[in-house]
Amino acid sequence: MQIAFQGEAGAYSEAAVFEHWGPQAVAAPCETFDAVFAAVEGGACARGLVPIENSLAGSIHRNYDLLLQHKLHIVAEHYLRVHHCLIAWPGVALGDIRRVISHPQALAQCEQHLRALPGVAVEPVYDTAGSVKMIRAQGDRTVAAIASRRAADVYGLAVLVEGFEDDAANFTRFLAIAPEPATATGDTKTSLVFTLNNIPGALFKALSVFALRDIDLTKIESRPLVGKLWEYLFYVDIAGSVADPPVARALEHLGEYAPLLRVLGSYPRHRLKE
Amino acid sequence: MQIAFQGEAGAYSEAAVFEHWGPQAVAAPCETFDAVFAAVEGGACARGLVPIENSLAGSIHRNYDLLLQHKLHIVAEHYLRVHHCLIAWPGVALGDIRRVISHPQALAQCEQHLRALPGVAVEPVYDTAGSVKMIRAQGDRTVAAIASRRAADVYGLAVLVEGFEDDAANFTRFLAIAPEPATATGDTKTSLVFTLNNIPGALFKALSVFALRDIDLTKIESRPLVGKLWEYLFYVDIAGSVADPPVARALEHLGEYAPLLRVLGSYPRHRLKE
Repeated sequence: MQIAFQGEAGAYSEAAVFEHWGPQAVAAPCETFDAVFAAVEGGACARGLVPIENSLAGSIHRNYDLLLQHKLHIVAEHYLRVHHCLIAWPGVALGDIRRVISHPQALAQCEQHLRALPGVAVEPVYDTAGSVKMIRAQGDRTVAAIASRRAADVYGLAVLVEGFEDDAANFTRFLAIAPEPATATGDTKTSLVFTLNNIPGALFKALSVFALRDIDLTKIESRPLVGKLWEYLFYVDIAGSVADPPVARALEHLGEYAPLLRVLGSYPRHRLKE
Repeated sequence: MQIAFQGEAGAYSEAAVFEHWGPQAVAAPCETFDAVFAAVEGGACARGLVPIENSLAGSIHRNYDLLLQHKLHIVAEHYLRVHHCLIAWPGVALGDIRRVISHPQALAQCEQHLRALPGVAVEPVYDTAGSVKMIRAQGDRTVAAIASRRAADVYGLAVLVEGFEDDAANFTRFLAIAPEPATATGDTKTSLVFTLNNIPGALFKALSVFALRDIDLTKIESRPLVGKLWEYLFYVDIAGSVADPPVARALEHLGEYAPLLRVLGSYPRHRLKE
């Protein structure tokens, strides 16, 4: 099965593809998130996998926008633990490193470990896997990159330090998108987007449709509506599937308050072991 | 007054400093957000200004973490409209450009305009102002950068196209931090962080403390708690100040449900004209 992801070979998104679908999956790199959606909509790929939030960096609104713009459905979620590796040419020792390059977010997530390397300069580049590719292309044995273990494998470099991140609880949540909705049962989640009229208590009323039916919320986020600075979109994930009668009734009830209500998909809940 | 911000001269954060405090402010560049907080806590700067959310890219959780780690107070907010410019050497025409460089987010926000430039390659670099600095250093007249008008001024380059962003409603919200709380009255906001016990309906009960007192919410966001994957922090902004008796009572009431409750500050509301 062809799965579209954004990034280069060795990207964390690619690692998530293989974790979710297994090593036989065919991961198709795309330059942009738009290209991932286009690949699935046009039929070039059966599924796309896009990051939707990171525990340290927050939600990726761009992908919520694309979910609203396209008629695709969320059919699965996948939590990937982000394990950063310090990567250099084989045979290089930690003491040989004079410079560390990576995406600014990865550098920030390894700040304490980086500070413990005396006399080492830090330089931001555009991408984690790209930083490994650069070391491969330039042949410099005094430079190390911060990226996934897979990036080291892809570019034939070595892992100098594993678990280089300061905080072990760094994870990214990905959503799998497909042309048809999933038929999810059992331990499921449903993702919604809605707007509310801008009056006090509107959100409280909206959430009552779930609270009155003991439906658990697993995510809530307000976002100022683009082009209408003082109106809001709400991103909400709830426990359960649209196939469950209480969820279906809650959504009907929510429709009475919400000028816009879109169900992005019901899908099996991914429970990452702690 | 010395104001600490993260980034280089010409960064959007620097533009926000001058918009908020006026041209007589002294903007002190810091390499990291941590350094901004340290500069204010240590007394080197009277205030810091950090981005907390962008309308397209979402919340910057790192700065919420730093607000929780430091004993500083939010004393103001500032919304900056992000106007991207296409910047090159003076005298260069649009037709001379063969490559456009910038931070990946800025490139993504100008995607449609970039596609309209035939035969132009796009290359991500680590920073918007940094991309202008690179063109200045390298002297290449076939390369353009996407950054603020101020970055063009700082590095002596020219604005080829103003308003290069695809979506005019791109804005970033900044928070001003200080060692002492503000005495905000009138049209104000209060920012809170709290946790709740993970039981159905917990958030609904928590929000009732505001709804029952007709206190408006201007932001809500749940965030999985780092290190405790299935517990949540909530970021909530409400209308009003802790000096208003109904707000004070609502917070007392919220304290009955919330194992952790921290008021980050009450401050004048910044209303951006539409």
